[in-house]
Amino acid sequence: MNDPKTFAAIEARVDHAAIAPLPRSRKIHVQGSRPDLRVPMREISQSDTPTASGGARNPPVFVYDCSGPYTDPQAKIDIRSGLPPLREAWIEERGDTRCLPAPTSDYDRRRAADPALAALRFPGLVRKPRRAKAGRNVTQMHYARQGIVTPEMEFVAIRENLNRQAYIESLKTSGPQGEKLAALLGRRHAGEAFGAAGFGDSAVEVTPEFVRDELARGRAIIPANVNHPESEPMIIGRNFLTKINANIGNSALSSSIAGEVDKMVWAIRWGGDTVMDLSTGKHIHETREWIIRNAPTPVGTVPVYQALEKVDGKAEELTWEIFRDTLIEQAEQGVDYFTLHAGVLLRHIPLAASRLTGIVSRGGAIMAKWCLAHHRENFLHAHFEEICEIMKAYDVAFSLGDGLRPGSIHDANDEAQLAELRTLGELTHVAWRHDVQTMIEGPGHVPLHLVRENMALELDWCKEAPFYTLGPLVTDIAPGHDHIASAIGAATIGWHGAAMLCYVTPKEHLGLPDRDDVKAGIIAYKLAAHAADLAKGHPGAQIRDNALSMARYEFRWEDQFNLGLDPDKAREFHDETLPGEAARTAHFCSMCGPRFCAMKITQEVRAFAAGKGLSETGTLAKGMEEKSVEFAQCGAQLYRKE
Amino acid sequence: MNDPKTFAAIEARVDHAAIAPLPRSRKIHVQGSRPDLRVPMREISQSDTPTASGGARNPPVFVYDCSGPYTDPQAKIDIRSGLPPLREAWIEERGDTRCLPAPTSDYDRRRAADPALAALRFPGLVRKPRRAKAGRNVTQMHYARQGIVTPEMEFVAIRENLNRQAYIESLKTSGPQGEKLAALLGRRHAGEAFGAAGFGDSAVEVTPEFVRDELARGRAIIPANVNHPESEPMIIGRNFLTKINANIGNSALSSSIAGEVDKMVWAIRWGGDTVMDLSTGKHIHETREWIIRNAPTPVGTVPVYQALEKVDGKAEELTWEIFRDTLIEQAEQGVDYFTLHAGVLLRHIPLAASRLTGIVSRGGAIMAKWCLAHHRENFLHAHFEEICEIMKAYDVAFSLGDGLRPGSIHDANDEAQLAELRTLGELTHVAWRHDVQTMIEGPGHVPLHLVRENMALELDWCKEAPFYTLGPLVTDIAPGHDHIASAIGAATIGWHGAAMLCYVTPKEHLGLPDRDDVKAGIIAYKLAAHAADLAKGHPGAQIRDNALSMARYEFRWEDQFNLGLDPDKAREFHDETLPGEAARTAHFCSMCGPRFCAMKITQEVRAFAAGKGLSETGTLAKGMEEKSVEFAQCGAQLYRKE
Repeated sequence: MNDPKTFAAIEARVDHAAIAPLPRSRKIHVQGSRPDLRVPMREISQSDTPTASGGARNPPVFVYDCSGPYTDPQAKIDIRSGLPPLREAWIEERGDTRCLPAPTSDYDRRRAADPALAALRFPGLVRKPRRAKAGRNVTQMHYARQGIVTPEMEFVAIRENLNRQAYIESLKTSGPQGEKLAALLGRRHAGEAFGAAGFGDSAVEVTPEFVRDELARGRAIIPANVNHPESEPMIIGRNFLTKINANIGNSALSSSIAGEVDKMVWAIRWGGDTVMDLSTGKHIHETREWIIRNAPTPVGTVPVYQALEKVDGKAEELTWEIFRDTLIEQAEQGVDYFTLHAGVLLRHIPLAASRLTGIVSRGGAIMAKWCLAHHRENFLHAHFEEICEIMKAYDVAFSLGDGLRPGSIHDANDEAQLAELRTLGELTHVAWRHDVQTMIEGPGHVPLHLVRENMALELDWCKEAPFYTLGPLVTDIAPGHDHIASAIGAATIGWHGAAMLCYVTPKEHLGLPDRDDVKAGIIAYKLAAHAADLAKGHPGAQIRDNALSMARYEFRWEDQFNLGLDPDKAREFHDETLPGEAARTAHFCSMCGPRFCAMKITQEVRAFAAGKGLSETGTLAKGMEEKSVEFAQCGAQLYRKE
Repeated sequence: MNDPKTFAAIEARVDHAAIAPLPRSRKIHVQGSRPDLRVPMREISQSDTPTASGGARNPPVFVYDCSGPYTDPQAKIDIRSGLPPLREAWIEERGDTRCLPAPTSDYDRRRAADPALAALRFPGLVRKPRRAKAGRNVTQMHYARQGIVTPEMEFVAIRENLNRQAYIESLKTSGPQGEKLAALLGRRHAGEAFGAAGFGDSAVEVTPEFVRDELARGRAIIPANVNHPESEPMIIGRNFLTKINANIGNSALSSSIAGEVDKMVWAIRWGGDTVMDLSTGKHIHETREWIIRNAPTPVGTVPVYQALEKVDGKAEELTWEIFRDTLIEQAEQGVDYFTLHAGVLLRHIPLAASRLTGIVSRGGAIMAKWCLAHHRENFLHAHFEEICEIMKAYDVAFSLGDGLRPGSIHDANDEAQLAELRTLGELTHVAWRHDVQTMIEGPGHVPLHLVRENMALELDWCKEAPFYTLGPLVTDIAPGHDHIASAIGAATIGWHGAAMLCYVTPKEHLGLPDRDDVKAGIIAYKLAAHAADLAKGHPGAQIRDNALSMARYEFRWEDQFNLGLDPDKAREFHDETLPGEAARTAHFCSMCGPRFCAMKITQEVRAFAAGKGLSETGTLAKGMEEKSVEFAQCGAQLYRKE
């Protein structure tokens, strides 16, 4: 829990383990069309492959990097000051926003004036909140529809391409190993994206214009609140790399500001593309401020959680005025997307009554309770146009919540869920009339064979707005292992086109995740998102698999560890059974020992063939072919009865 | 490593944690058509749901149980004596086998005569090995094709149905909770199995005749060596529950007899349907004897591993004679299925030369090396008919190995892999001419969108012989987490029809799995197999999900833990954040705290509706309908421009 030593506690938590560069990795930046447009990526260097003539150089591999300045030893990390506002000049230049003299939310002003909160308050913010000038719309979608390519769009275009372009460049100067790897790129599985979209040849290189077009169509969003200039732009859409979100946030029973800032830094270290602060406990406003000021990724929230706290947990006492003030409070802090359960309509609620597990979305349950208590339509739905006006004044994106998502296999794809999805499609249409960026949240618990239907209906009813799903979990029977139950569904729906996958940690259904759970959830979801990218045939995805598999085949253990999603765990597992430096260069591991390693034997087979003067693919093939012809001439009968 | 205190060490390792019943579980048996046909299952009892009038009784749930006598406090476990030979009378009665005066394998006789091995040798076997009388064929497939329903077939029929039948009976006497759960069974997702097969209405109850027919067609196998009478019959086929295998076994660098027996008991506790002893280290013969005599599940091996040890690891020195003696040695010990890499043909080897990761199957690499060294065809292929004669004399099933399975995403579904699969189809045809039970091994590393093709080709080329796959892993980049990378592929291929899924542990590619890794692999694969069963629409699969979800919804924490795949982990995670007895009855957890629990709020919504005299599905729906009509009359316009 928070204590007077909050600042020191936060600094202590965001420790060396969280900000040290990953092994053999360094942060590099590629400059775009202007000096202040510097796109980060992570370069993983490799060791040489020993050869008779010394060592063959292995090219570095470049990977998408969500960790912001934290893993950069060049950057000065000061949690009390927050991150540098890298987008500030871009926002300023557009000239369509103005700085407010003070926050316009009543609640925010009351918090700011409360001396009792001084010890908890983030000390580093000197900037004033910003909003659109009267009559202006500052969303990335609006710019895109005006034909404007913003620096944010250029940034994400470079970012989406980066690893592939840099890698292909580096292959050219990497000698024989580079040639081998370049040849491998020629055999890329075609991929099979759902429906019309996917990675055609035209998408081999993502251009800023392609990004603009996808935003204009509503097929992608760049969550980028003008009050969160610290964020590095990223894009969510099914014609881009599949993204993942990490939920963090305290509850009434657990955690502190230090713990949540630490979870954020930890989550992005391992690959979280966005974080959602789902705090429902103490000091929600202050906790969020610390998180946003230190977050290089977009931050999402579910505003009704805080609104409910403002009415002491009594859902029926929620009012549109309190809710509206909460939206403004959070928009002016810099929240990049809001989950709003505007599709939970009065007429949908009875559809959930016969369910096995009723309503399992917290926001959905709160709105249902309010609707029934007042017997009035959901105020989020009733005021949706007004909400759009707020969203476009700050460029907050909608994440239209699935308040009626199924909470069990039994309830999957039922009428309650689908009725809400139809309503979300209608709301998408409204949001797009306002040029407000919009994504759609999806389930939940769904058996494997019904996953595809979810994606198909979403694409149809919500006109290809990005789908952002929670798993789905493909069975209910694995508490304690639901990161796996849900990664199976997540990989599948990502393949079919879900643009962002919300992680589920091993603690799901059981308790608030801690640091270890956050990492376990992230790794499972990076894995699922990458599997989806491979299956969609993303042109750059297989590079990392190829490089790691080549390292594995050549017994470059350190490279195998470092190219993986979790170098620490891989090293730990290897060293647990075969410790010492020598083992990390041995041509076997404890699984098979020296005699039984298939990779070692295969290398011997190749050496053997070479020794006989048979080149592997040439002469050897020819010799074998002769055998094969001989075999065919004998009637191609494998077995003749004696 | 082994020491003079081997026996004591084994007994110490198979400890209380491995053999205690799971929480709130007890072993029960259902008797078949004869008194010695007693089919085990695990009954999980539940607590009552508190109601105003006391407590509503919740029916027990019955689950398939692989753990044999170990989790039965009634059973006397004596690792030195082995398990009781439950099938002995059935085998004896058939009158088609005879007991041999001694093992017929030279090697076996030499080992038995070596006094230096006394301290390691399993002391409990008094039985003589058994083989078919001259001219007789003792395979379950042979009986099935003769129209004979064996006790083994009846056993598996009861076993496959059991949980569903017993549950439906118990629902009838369980009052209102039973009625609720019975109603849920009415909404079973139809399922979507690949191709023609699947769970039609005809398969709602598995009959002994259905089992016989599936065996006769070759669509399923019951691995049941006459020398492993300790095993409880189980069936592998895609019209039955999806099964999983756990690989255990020592390596030259790691583990002991005690360690391996312990891993076997631990693996079946968590749900391993079969185990493969893949030992490649010391004392392979003795280790296997200890495992088989204590294994209530079928045991598989890869005989070439031991054969290679007999020639000091020099693949080129392998001979058919040594190999043949190894097959007989293992068949007379009771191995239930053999992985044989008979499809690695000379002409296939060059196809693997241009691969990224060459040959990654240990057996495949050994055979390839032998083929090249001698420039002769694979002796397993050349002597395949002779091998069939051995298999049918003991009822050892073929597991035709995929020696050329892809070891990286790049190599997936390539010509080397597919050429071998075609050969395996030809060999299946040969095996079936001998009525030898056969399954086909599958990959490996395959991107998600190519998984289905593997299944489709296998069904076509191998005429629906059961497919037994290793994962597949859907990406190469997750060393340390490959149980997850592969569970994604396993669930998918299981859904499409793979009959058995070979687990992959978190240590894959890094080291020999220990006890913890075995459990992690098993749980991930039980989860994947269950997800596949749900997706195939198995009639009994959803029962456990429904029961667990109802427990979750009613805040019966203990029941939620106990109905899950891993009660210990679930309880540990829950108690970590909210310790104490009271927390285990609280209507919330640390994730959301008391105010934000959606399930709690939903219950309040229902109570609220009830308080207003609105029954949930009746009056409430009616009131909402009026609202809905009113809404439609207003033009069903959600948004009208002001």
